[in-house]
Amino acid sequence: MNDRVSLSLEDAWSRLEAAVPAARPRIERVPVTEANGRVLAELVTARADSPPADNSAMDGFALNSKDVRTGQSLNVSQRIAAGTAPHALEPGTAARIFTGAVIPDGADSVVIQENCDFSDTQVTIREGLRAGANIRRRAGDISQGDVVVDAHTRLRPQEMGLILSAGVAEVAVYAPLRVGVIATGDELIDVTSLEGPDSGAPATGKIFESNSPMIAARLQDLGCVASRYRARDTKVDTISVLSRAIDENDMVLTIGGVSVGEEDHVQVALNHIGRTEFWKINIKPGKPFLFGTASGKPVMGLPGNPVSSFVTFHLFCTPFLQQLQGGRFTRPVRLPAVAGFSSDRVSDRVDHLRGRIVSYSPELVVEPVGTQSSSIQGALCAADVLIVIPVNTPVAVGQPLTVMLL
Amino acid sequence: MNDRVSLSLEDAWSRLEAAVPAARPRIERVPVTEANGRVLAELVTARADSPPADNSAMDGFALNSKDVRTGQSLNVSQRIAAGTAPHALEPGTAARIFTGAVIPDGADSVVIQENCDFSDTQVTIREGLRAGANIRRRAGDISQGDVVVDAHTRLRPQEMGLILSAGVAEVAVYAPLRVGVIATGDELIDVTSLEGPDSGAPATGKIFESNSPMIAARLQDLGCVASRYRARDTKVDTISVLSRAIDENDMVLTIGGVSVGEEDHVQVALNHIGRTEFWKINIKPGKPFLFGTASGKPVMGLPGNPVSSFVTFHLFCTPFLQQLQGGRFTRPVRLPAVAGFSSDRVSDRVDHLRGRIVSYSPELVVEPVGTQSSSIQGALCAADVLIVIPVNTPVAVGQPLTVMLL
Repeated sequence: MNDRVSLSLEDAWSRLEAAVPAARPRIERVPVTEANGRVLAELVTARADSPPADNSAMDGFALNSKDVRTGQSLNVSQRIAAGTAPHALEPGTAARIFTGAVIPDGADSVVIQENCDFSDTQVTIREGLRAGANIRRRAGDISQGDVVVDAHTRLRPQEMGLILSAGVAEVAVYAPLRVGVIATGDELIDVTSLEGPDSGAPATGKIFESNSPMIAARLQDLGCVASRYRARDTKVDTISVLSRAIDENDMVLTIGGVSVGEEDHVQVALNHIGRTEFWKINIKPGKPFLFGTASGKPVMGLPGNPVSSFVTFHLFCTPFLQQLQGGRFTRPVRLPAVAGFSSDRVSDRVDHLRGRIVSYSPELVVEPVGTQSSSIQGALCAADVLIVIPVNTPVAVGQPLTVMLL
Repeated sequence: MNDRVSLSLEDAWSRLEAAVPAARPRIERVPVTEANGRVLAELVTARADSPPADNSAMDGFALNSKDVRTGQSLNVSQRIAAGTAPHALEPGTAARIFTGAVIPDGADSVVIQENCDFSDTQVTIREGLRAGANIRRRAGDISQGDVVVDAHTRLRPQEMGLILSAGVAEVAVYAPLRVGVIATGDELIDVTSLEGPDSGAPATGKIFESNSPMIAARLQDLGCVASRYRARDTKVDTISVLSRAIDENDMVLTIGGVSVGEEDHVQVALNHIGRTEFWKINIKPGKPFLFGTASGKPVMGLPGNPVSSFVTFHLFCTPFLQQLQGGRFTRPVRLPAVAGFSSDRVSDRVDHLRGRIVSYSPELVVEPVGTQSSSIQGALCAADVLIVIPVNTPVAVGQPLTVMLL
C-alpha cells in the first residue's frame, strides 16, 4: 500500500466488489409476508400456475364462438362467479361470467356485457365476438416449475406478491447483517448527556455526536442490525474497541480518525489486528476512506466530517453491504442532468456537490445548495442529489453532468 | 358524481391534495435516534451553535498571523487535541493543534503541518500563512435558535444528524398511521392454507392472495401500521368488513370489487356507510380507482389486478399517505428519458408501461419489459421504471418521454 496514491472511484468499486468475505451470512426461512427487504438465499420456483386456470378478464358471457351468429339469442345455462367451480358449458348456450371466474370447458370466448342485450335467462350478442377474446390464459404469468425470482435478489413488495401468487409461502433469506459502528474522538459527547432545558451548549472542546446515529439509521434502512461503539483517541482504546466490535459483528465501520496524524488511530489499530487493503480515494469529499479486514471480516473507515461520512457511505458502504448481505454489488445510479450553474472552481478529485433539482423537464437541471464544506450538514439536508463534477472540470450553464439521487 | 366521466391524473392529484382529513394524526415524542422515517410535528430549533466553537479544519499549528514572518521560528507553547479546552495563546508563540480542536483565544489562523518544519518545541512556517485559514467558524453550520428542520418534514438519517448536532435529543413526531387493507373476492385463498409439499395448485376457481401482502408491505415501507382484512363477495359482508376496518384504522384501502358489476360491492358498501368522492381516472392500468370517506376517514379503492393495484398505490396512495402522516403531498417524481422502442399502440388513457432503463448516458433510454397486461406480475418485478405514455401518442425511437423510478 502506497500512502501517497489515491485510488480512482472506479478502482475502489472494483476492489470492493472483488473483496469476497470469509463467510457468507447465515440463512433462515421466513414467511414471504415477512420478507420485505430481505435478500433471497435460494432461487424460487413456482409450485402452481398463475393464473391457475383460464379465467375471464371482464364481466360478460362465456360461450363457444361456433355457436353464435350476431343477433341470435342463446339461453343462459349457468352463472359463474369468481371463486366458484363451473360445470362444462352446455352446447349451444352461454354462461353468465364475472371478472376472475374460471372459463367453463367448452367455452372459447367471453363477450363483455356492454356488447350484449341480456336477461337472467337469455343473451343476444350485438357485437364483439372474437374467438379467444377476454380470456386470461392459465399460466399466462407463471408456469409451475418456472423460476419466479432469482437467488440474491432483494425482495420488494412486488416480488413478494409474485412469489405468493406462485403458491410459495416461505423463502430462504440471508440473516440480517450485524454491523458495528465505532465513533472515534474525545470531542464527542451524547446530546442526551445535557441536563435541563437551558443547558444547550456542550462543554468547551466538545461537540454533540451526530455521525454514528446517522450512519446507524442508514444501516437500518438497508436492513442491517447496527450497534454503536465509541473509542477514545488513543491507540490502546481504539484497538480494544475495534477488536470487540469485530468479535460482535459481521462487519465494522469506523467514523473519524482515519488519517495518519498523531491523533488518528484507526489505521494503526486496524493494522495491529488485521490489515489495510486500501486507503484514500480520489474523491471530494471523503478522500481518506479506508478499507481493510480483520479476522476475515470487512472494516471500512469513514472520514469524520458529517458530509464525508455520508457520501462515502453512499458510494462505498451501500453497494458493499448489499453484496455482503448476499445480494448484488450495484454501483450508485448516476442519472444524466445539465448544470443550472457555472463554476470556475476545479479540483484534482471527483467532486460530489450537494445539489437540488431545479427543473425536471425537458431535462433534469441541477444546482448546488448552501455551503459545500464537508463539515456543513445543513446543505446535505437541503440536497436531493449529489452532483458529480469530474476532475479539473469547470462548469458552464447547460453543461451535461451526472447526478446521484439521495 | 358522473360514472361515465374519468378524472385526469392531474385533477385526481389536486382533489386528493385538497382532501383534508377530519383528524390530524396523534403526536408523540421520541428520541431523535429512533425517529428515522418519522414526520416532524414541530419545527426544530437549535439549542446550540454548530460547531460550538471555532475549531481547526486540519492538523497543524494555531497562531496569530501578526506574529509570523515566513522562515521565522516560533516556540510551541501548548498542544491542543480535539476534545480538550485550550488556554489563551501565549503571544508570539504557536499552539500544536489537531483537526476538530478548539482554536485558542489570540490565534487567528491555522497553518497545516505539511507547510511547516517542526519539533515538539519549535515550528518554522515555510508557506501557507493566511489570516483566518483552516478555521471552521463557530456556528458556521447552525446558530443557536436557527430553525434546523421544518415541521412536516420526513426525517432521513441526514436530518437526524443535523438535529443531534444542534443539541436536540428528542422531537415531536406524528404517530404511525394505522391503515386497514381489505382484500375482496371469493376466489382468494391463503397460500399457507395448502397442505403438504406436493399440493401446489389451489382448488378450482381459487387463486392465491398476493395483493394485500404486497400493499401491506408498501405501507410498512412508508412507516404505516398495516392490518389485513378479507371481505366475501356480498354486499352485507363488504359493508360489515369495511365498517370494522374504518373503526380500527385511520384509513382504509380496498383491493378489487371496485367496478359496478353484479359482483362488485365496494362502492355500494362505501356509499352505504360513507360517500364516494370520485371514481375512475383516465389512466392505464388502474382506471377504476376510487376515493371516498366514511366516518371522516379516507377510503381508497384499488383495482384487483396486481399491476393496477401497485400502480394506483404508487400514483395516489403514496403522496396521499405522506400528507395524511403529517407530511407534504408530493406527486411522484417524473424524470426525462427517451424511448429505446417504438410503438403504434395508442390509448385514450395515460399509459404506464412497465419498463427498464437500458442506458444511462448521455440520456436515460427506456424500453418496456415483458407482457403489459395488468394481470402480469412478472413484468412488474422485472421493471425498474414506469414509462408514461401520453393519451393517443404513438412512440418512435428517440422520442422524449417521462418515467417514474420504482
